[in-house]
Amino acid sequence: MQRQDTDTNAVMSHVIDALSPHFGDRLVTSWAMREQHGHDESWHAGAAPDAVVFPHSTDEVSLIVSECARHKVAVIPFGAGTSLEGHVAAVRGGVTIDMSQMADVVRVSAEDLDCTVQAGITRKTLNAHLRDTGLFMPVDPGADATVGGMVSTRASGTNAVRYGTVRENVLGLTVVLADGSVVRTGGRARKSASGYDLTHLLTGAEGTLGVITEITLRLHGIPEETGAATCSFASVDDAVATVIQTIQSGIPVARIELLDDVMVRACNAYSQLGLPEQPMLFLEFHGSAAGVREQAQRVADLAQANGGGDFEWATRAEDRTRLWEARHSAYYAALALSPGRKGFTTDVCVPVSQLAGVISQTRADVEEAHLIAPLVGHVGDGNFHLILLVDPDDGAEVDTAQALHARLVMRALAAGGTCTGEHGIGIGKKHFLALEHGDAVDMMRAIKKALDPDGIMNPGKMLPDV
Amino acid sequence: MQRQDTDTNAVMSHVIDALSPHFGDRLVTSWAMREQHGHDESWHAGAAPDAVVFPHSTDEVSLIVSECARHKVAVIPFGAGTSLEGHVAAVRGGVTIDMSQMADVVRVSAEDLDCTVQAGITRKTLNAHLRDTGLFMPVDPGADATVGGMVSTRASGTNAVRYGTVRENVLGLTVVLADGSVVRTGGRARKSASGYDLTHLLTGAEGTLGVITEITLRLHGIPEETGAATCSFASVDDAVATVIQTIQSGIPVARIELLDDVMVRACNAYSQLGLPEQPMLFLEFHGSAAGVREQAQRVADLAQANGGGDFEWATRAEDRTRLWEARHSAYYAALALSPGRKGFTTDVCVPVSQLAGVISQTRADVEEAHLIAPLVGHVGDGNFHLILLVDPDDGAEVDTAQALHARLVMRALAAGGTCTGEHGIGIGKKHFLALEHGDAVDMMRAIKKALDPDGIMNPGKMLPDV
Repeated sequence: MQRQDTDTNAVMSHVIDALSPHFGDRLVTSWAMREQHGHDESWHAGAAPDAVVFPHSTDEVSLIVSECARHKVAVIPFGAGTSLEGHVAAVRGGVTIDMSQMADVVRVSAEDLDCTVQAGITRKTLNAHLRDTGLFMPVDPGADATVGGMVSTRASGTNAVRYGTVRENVLGLTVVLADGSVVRTGGRARKSASGYDLTHLLTGAEGTLGVITEITLRLHGIPEETGAATCSFASVDDAVATVIQTIQSGIPVARIELLDDVMVRACNAYSQLGLPEQPMLFLEFHGSAAGVREQAQRVADLAQANGGGDFEWATRAEDRTRLWEARHSAYYAALALSPGRKGFTTDVCVPVSQLAGVISQTRADVEEAHLIAPLVGHVGDGNFHLILLVDPDDGAEVDTAQALHARLVMRALAAGGTCTGEHGIGIGKKHFLALEHGDAVDMMRAIKKALDPDGIMNPGKMLPDV
Repeated sequence: MQRQDTDTNAVMSHVIDALSPHFGDRLVTSWAMREQHGHDESWHAGAAPDAVVFPHSTDEVSLIVSECARHKVAVIPFGAGTSLEGHVAAVRGGVTIDMSQMADVVRVSAEDLDCTVQAGITRKTLNAHLRDTGLFMPVDPGADATVGGMVSTRASGTNAVRYGTVRENVLGLTVVLADGSVVRTGGRARKSASGYDLTHLLTGAEGTLGVITEITLRLHGIPEETGAATCSFASVDDAVATVIQTIQSGIPVARIELLDDVMVRACNAYSQLGLPEQPMLFLEFHGSAAGVREQAQRVADLAQANGGGDFEWATRAEDRTRLWEARHSAYYAALALSPGRKGFTTDVCVPVSQLAGVISQTRADVEEAHLIAPLVGHVGDGNFHLILLVDPDDGAEVDTAQALHARLVMRALAAGGTCTGEHGIGIGKKHFLALEHGDAVDMMRAIKKALDPDGIMNPGKMLPDV
């Protein structure tokens, strides 16, 4: 990231001068702080903001946004920085609002299975806080993201197949809009037919319509019993057929994940596991003891009918951890396949019936392109990731990977799918938005223009030309 | 409804002249047809449109809207006319688009558990079509509404507690916007983080942002086994405590409905049932044979711990129908309590923990107001209806009912709830919108203005002054 100095920008100085008396040392302009807030965990080029502010309340966020609005300065919300599509890069400079000091649990209602939290709390902190209530927040994207970041990117993860994504688990929001005004959307009722669904408009808006400061979430009871299972298959087709039949039979699996043979090989090498180097399903079941047993038995029968190997299963925590070890370390195992290269992660999601076809065409494409790209999938949802191992300094390799990604997205769209199941558009997929949505992008643009006429909210993200 | 003649309006004549050559006898201006399309099933005053058109395709809907847009004439989408808040009243005249001849199932994918339908198909027709696939569309608001109407009003009904409302079951839409342009939102992927969630913005927009012409829906497997149960309680509090504990235990009940003692008495009188005249829960369980038994047993234990009476239960279809008879005929039984009066139905939804308190305060309020108002509730969601029996020609009684409704809404909002769980705002609840949403109404208004600058899409609905 190239260093830019704030003092080159007179407008920005006005904003900093206006905010400094209020925020004191919670407004930081050091290069180290700016640099750290200019990039996420992806390979996308970062861009440093001019200042980073750490608010403690919705009112303080409103103060920051109002001041930025007055001077048409960009506002970039920042959670844990774990996004994967360059969402936090300050491509037009401006003020990054770091939400990490707004991390309180505002209230929990165990009776209603809901809670309200400040946006900067991470999912692990929230779940630790909830443990004694017997409840948990199920959305698990892997990284210890903030709840605000997860809502803003419409995150999901491994157990969306049972509990839904963030979309199905957010009930209401407090949001600071582009003019600094504060609105509350949704509420605590489980359902409502009252007015436009602003909650879901703002969920997945990637900070381009407002800064989310508080979130009301559904919670779920920690299951009485948890079971885990693994099963190998001769082909991805057989594994996916088992997934389709499982979903279609209404078996309420909590997680159902696929690693392809390349990924299993990577995990064997990384963790010395000795798994059969074949496509493999990783399952988790939640319910009563009897219910979990019944679910596992039914999936085992389906797996066997599809030529699956041993159906290993366990309910004790340490045995479950052992069974799932390969899945948990998959990302790092993938990176270890080619030290020095970075992981460029794709994220298409297709109807489950199309999954085997799209995966097999994609595998052939990867081989033809001579790339290393293990595959891991939230296959119950039709969502899978290739971890393309790419040297960011090798222009030809980057181009090859980008071209392969574009072909993958076209294949997914042709199959009725989406370019991103859970990572969002950010900087990295802007060029796919119109391919996927056609004229609906004009409708998105009209909404953006109406709610953020000066284009100050996380500019350069999602919409191609806003 | 007072008769208005179309020929008094020159602009309208232009529109009719422009559309007639294309639509022939599918454009109707007879008073009988206009009158029929000017009201729904509620007690709200109707208003006839100037013309009713029956399109066969999205392109034809686009043609109609384009022509109306050119002349700034109002467009009112019409499904089955079963809405309850005056949604179809043509309060500014204009063209009603009757979707009943767009009622095809476009495609079903049993493997993916989804389908695409034209908006005019009713839910019962769709479910009859699906029967051989082993799948069903679970949203059941009681009336045989069209899928388009259900999406537009964010409908739900008795089994939302397990399968979600329309909101959780809509994957994508085809919509004709206010300028006649056609957009497709969402898609067939189970989840997506791509762009603004236009699908959910349009779901529940009551036709004020566009005319929905096609819908992609999630489907669910018809359960292997269905069980039904009933149980009486000494008090609403005891019944609701059982509901809360059921939900909190994660028992996946498919339906959990409450009738209060007044409603049970009405059902006894209407259907000669001899039920104990106490608050009563009606339950339905879906799953495997073993799973259904286990669920029922667990709820029976909870009911007993809360002092419940006999827990009657059945799995044979005819026995289930018998058990649920009172619930199925509740609305008509309520009306029969006071022949000649009409049913004015309230629709608040509150966090479940607040339900017993809100119901008991409301029952006291009903008694004090000397109104007859049996209660039926989708209590698993915290949603309940009073059926206020009102003589629409008795101004004082109407005022009393309206005042009671307003107090009920304030009570629900104070409890963190909403003025409408599933019926929508329409004409009847516009004055509650700002009470519930505060400044977020300005955000709704900005979106409306951006997407329908001339205010032609179902004017006079939802937003107080648009």
